[in-house]
Amino acid sequence: MRVLGIDPGIAIVGFGFIDKIGSKLVPVQYGCITTEARTAPEERLKQVYDSACALMDRYKPDTVAVEKLFFNRNVTTAFSVGQARGVVILAAAQRGLPVAEYTPLQVKQAVVGYGKAEKRQVQEMVRMFLKLSAIPKPDDVADALAVAICHAHSSVLTNKINEVNRS
Amino acid sequence: MRVLGIDPGIAIVGFGFIDKIGSKLVPVQYGCITTEARTAPEERLKQVYDSACALMDRYKPDTVAVEKLFFNRNVTTAFSVGQARGVVILAAAQRGLPVAEYTPLQVKQAVVGYGKAEKRQVQEMVRMFLKLSAIPKPDDVADALAVAICHAHSSVLTNKINEVNRS
Repeated sequence: MRVLGIDPGIAIVGFGFIDKIGSKLVPVQYGCITTEARTAPEERLKQVYDSACALMDRYKPDTVAVEKLFFNRNVTTAFSVGQARGVVILAAAQRGLPVAEYTPLQVKQAVVGYGKAEKRQVQEMVRMFLKLSAIPKPDDVADALAVAICHAHSSVLTNKINEVNRS
Repeated sequence: MRVLGIDPGIAIVGFGFIDKIGSKLVPVQYGCITTEARTAPEERLKQVYDSACALMDRYKPDTVAVEKLFFNRNVTTAFSVGQARGVVILAAAQRGLPVAEYTPLQVKQAVVGYGKAEKRQVQEMVRMFLKLSAIPKPDDVADALAVAICHAHSSVLTNKINEVNRS
């Protein structure tokens, strides 16, 4: 199963594709889509959408995982992140890909096993799970990989539950 | 000039196409796109996007106007509205249409001439400007027409300013 994890934003969208092979997690490709502040907002959204489409078509994920955000920050930020998130989810829906959402708490619990884990701990666990030599930068990339790992772990659990129910 | 005004949301997207012919404003088509709560969020976004594309392709606006929202309401709502707004703006950008944003204050000033106007006053002015027999329902439709009127008025002003600057 190939999972695409996404950390959306208008200036920077982190992405990470990982393969779950048996119980192993293997990084396939990760990085970020960036847009420039001087570009018109509608053009930036189009750039995010076009890049997301191109990535999905190239790396063909089976499923997409996105963090469900609850901001303490201002509403204008939520609004702008929401717009970027919308066009990425649209790209997934157009390809018939299921979209899973996880709260930050769920991501931390799945990756570190502890819901109040620090950002740095999450990043370090991402590095270890994927056997990377360094923590991926910027933070948006590590966050995208974390939600992908969360989904991979959760779907292991979901499959186990389904097996129990079936037996 | 044909303006498409949009009031975005995930459950309901109000839209209104108006033509500015000389100093007159003529309604072309208005209504709303609706999606059902029991449908998956990604599918609802796709429905909003597909309907917005179909409307733009059918009524071929020259420009799109959207309200710039500042919520007092919760951030989750802003987030969800932002996602719907994102896919509509994407549809415009893909067609090379300019997207103009207006604050609620600007819309009220342009439509009623008074920034603290009540919702009902705005709706009544929309009805009068467009010579409609009744206020369009639901509110989302009237709001979409209001932002379209705002843009039509503002662009009259912008053109006048340009003429003054040119002379």
